[in-house]
Amino acid sequence: MSSAIQQRLTGERPRARVIIIGAGFAGLSAAQRLGKLAVDVTLLDRKNHHTFQPLLYQVALAVLSPGDIAQPIRSIVRNNSNTEVVMDEVLGIDTVKRRVHIKSGVEMIYDYLILATGSTHSYFGKSEWAAIAPGLKTVEDATEIRRRVLLAFELAERQMLETGSHPPLQFVVIGGGPTGVELAGAISDIARLYMTRDFRHIDTKTAKVLILEGSPHVLAAYPPDLQKSAVRQLNKLGVTVRTSAHVTDVQPGYVMVGDERVDSCCTLWAAGVQASPLGKLLAQTPGVELDKRGCVIVNQYLNPKNLPEVFVCGDLAHVEQDGKQVPGVAQPAMQMGDYAGRRIGLLVADSDKAARMKPFRYFDKGDMATIGRKAAVARVVWPFKANLSGFIAWMMWMFVHIYFLVGFRNRLSVFRSWAFTYIQLQDGVRLIVGSQTLPGWDELAQPATTTQNDVQI
Amino acid sequence: MSSAIQQRLTGERPRARVIIIGAGFAGLSAAQRLGKLAVDVTLLDRKNHHTFQPLLYQVALAVLSPGDIAQPIRSIVRNNSNTEVVMDEVLGIDTVKRRVHIKSGVEMIYDYLILATGSTHSYFGKSEWAAIAPGLKTVEDATEIRRRVLLAFELAERQMLETGSHPPLQFVVIGGGPTGVELAGAISDIARLYMTRDFRHIDTKTAKVLILEGSPHVLAAYPPDLQKSAVRQLNKLGVTVRTSAHVTDVQPGYVMVGDERVDSCCTLWAAGVQASPLGKLLAQTPGVELDKRGCVIVNQYLNPKNLPEVFVCGDLAHVEQDGKQVPGVAQPAMQMGDYAGRRIGLLVADSDKAARMKPFRYFDKGDMATIGRKAAVARVVWPFKANLSGFIAWMMWMFVHIYFLVGFRNRLSVFRSWAFTYIQLQDGVRLIVGSQTLPGWDELAQPATTTQNDVQI
Repeated sequence: MSSAIQQRLTGERPRARVIIIGAGFAGLSAAQRLGKLAVDVTLLDRKNHHTFQPLLYQVALAVLSPGDIAQPIRSIVRNNSNTEVVMDEVLGIDTVKRRVHIKSGVEMIYDYLILATGSTHSYFGKSEWAAIAPGLKTVEDATEIRRRVLLAFELAERQMLETGSHPPLQFVVIGGGPTGVELAGAISDIARLYMTRDFRHIDTKTAKVLILEGSPHVLAAYPPDLQKSAVRQLNKLGVTVRTSAHVTDVQPGYVMVGDERVDSCCTLWAAGVQASPLGKLLAQTPGVELDKRGCVIVNQYLNPKNLPEVFVCGDLAHVEQDGKQVPGVAQPAMQMGDYAGRRIGLLVADSDKAARMKPFRYFDKGDMATIGRKAAVARVVWPFKANLSGFIAWMMWMFVHIYFLVGFRNRLSVFRSWAFTYIQLQDGVRLIVGSQTLPGWDELAQPATTTQNDVQI
Repeated sequence: MSSAIQQRLTGERPRARVIIIGAGFAGLSAAQRLGKLAVDVTLLDRKNHHTFQPLLYQVALAVLSPGDIAQPIRSIVRNNSNTEVVMDEVLGIDTVKRRVHIKSGVEMIYDYLILATGSTHSYFGKSEWAAIAPGLKTVEDATEIRRRVLLAFELAERQMLETGSHPPLQFVVIGGGPTGVELAGAISDIARLYMTRDFRHIDTKTAKVLILEGSPHVLAAYPPDLQKSAVRQLNKLGVTVRTSAHVTDVQPGYVMVGDERVDSCCTLWAAGVQASPLGKLLAQTPGVELDKRGCVIVNQYLNPKNLPEVFVCGDLAHVEQDGKQVPGVAQPAMQMGDYAGRRIGLLVADSDKAARMKPFRYFDKGDMATIGRKAAVARVVWPFKANLSGFIAWMMWMFVHIYFLVGFRNRLSVFRSWAFTYIQLQDGVRLIVGSQTLPGWDELAQPATTTQNDVQI
């Protein structure tokens, strides 16, 4: 521990050191705020890129490329000269000595810590379902889902050639939240609009999509009229919605709903989320409490109990407001990250001002979920109040998502892809990568293995 | 075997049936020619997409996305109503009964067969080198190479943080053909031009690239003055070229040249190619001969011995012309595919004309290899004769490659990416997908494993 560079992370420093763990919406918002302040920032992530999760389902359904919605973290914070990017995994957090242990063995000292590592899928203890019904959180998940959906059509076409018939193409999406609704609508779109001319023997329009939602309503966070409108729009796209449907088993080729067997050529998981395991690491500090999904319970300044120098932001934070939990979506994550950044700025510069700082309050501008081409629902709260659905909501959804996408190049690229896809009904990026062989319906539910020396035949 | 659809592949047919195996340049050219004729065509490939291989190195070096240079086969031949696409693997070819056995168990009958399955890497019997030094033939190869190159920089940055120094960033490219030269130049480009502002502690400009070529000259197919110009341009980009360098061992972290150990943070393979294993399947027919690389020796009508209804095209074919072998690159492949298509058209329609048809002759318009930004060599034969190098050759290279790229959308997308990358020196698509962890220098030389449930930290 002697070099000038180590000093930066582990030695004595005149300026306060802030470590941000996680480069999602919350982490990046904090980094952008702190980039302008007189502190030293280290942004730590296991991946080299930020993923714009709201558009991930479009990568899964072959409308966009991974590169359109992901951006290298280094280039996002390139102009923040006080910010360091470290690509590594966190193994432990010592809140007494204020150190973060990373996998390479270094112990990084912090004066302030922002923990924003988000959430991951929850299979409610049935981890064996994960291989059969992949969820959608990362770019890798998206390409895996794409592979399975496209291979299901290829398999049906080949079976038609071999036997003159094929098992019904029924795609099952478990979970009727925004991701489930988006995935279901997008599968229906590609089957009805984009792939019809690609196959000679199967009629891709006969593909069915089924949403299985455990609660009585899809899109639980939306007002009842928008929930109803969403179901109507889904039905129009040929998507069937079954609510109060309790999935009891997930197997290759089918799903059990109670005692009923539901055939599925491809099952996708959009049901449960749980907090990132980093919450548990933090909870080793006495006093820090987690809720039942593993989220860290924080006060109105986003601090866990007794740790005013630690901030938990985004999906990993359990923040109560007006008796309700702030939802785990992009908007509150960005607002929390920004708040934590501002608060650290005040704590460092002016403790009086910091003492007078207002607590965090989520400013809810509304919510929107897209359903398919020209179909969406939007609960708008700001700048005006309205519940919108259909084409207008869809246009608004497109505008907002292009606007918030990180990186000008990505914005341009997504805009172009949408113009092609939605207006001209042109090809998306329907590439199957990873395992290309068509082993049979059952084995479709296996993760892809990338083989070296793939021979192109 | 009774359905109307099976009839198409295995029953009696009034029209001649043509099976094309492989949807590379040769296979697609044949398909496009045959799409206009009164025959039934089946295009068989193990992948669902055609890969524009000349630009694959740009995917590997993060300038382009996989979707930019690959196109679903179904959509390429969508308007050829006589053409069927089957995604499957070939297990056997029975040239007596004229059947192709595919993995799903079907035996497809042909009247004419076009075999165009190209080539794959050859490690000269050292298949254990494949995992350490990946080659570049498929989209999966390209993303794997990208992962390793980008991780090498990340690793160096982290080592700098931990220890204040890092092992020299020396990238070794084995093989000085067009692919090796392109890879080497592109690595140097991203290190010198695009990544300099991304890292705080390492100076990416200090990265070195070394080409190890076994023969006395790089770009063996080019005239001596262009070879010399290529070396000069490579040196200007900071690439060192060692010719007559015989690689005796490839290990994680180093390469042996004779008895000398050459350190390597990342080794790439661009040395040998061998024919696709389908050549061996065909060679089970008595009389069919292979050359030492496994290519099928064909006559001047592209037929193997005694098989006038079988055509071998592209890299898999060994065609002699003026005492020299026609090279295994895109241009002759396209010309062979087109020739085979035209010849089948004549054989079906008019045997007199077929008997008078001129033998295949490769019309060599020239060759070009890009070296880096604003650097290339071009041996132009048609429409004018010239040996060009530098900026002019590079502009010509860009123009030709955009022009020949399959699909309008791809052309637009590549054009946009190049404008960003080469003019603005903006970010490419520097995403690391697959395994994201940084295990250490040695383990870098492991294929990526995609893990389900990747937790984003």
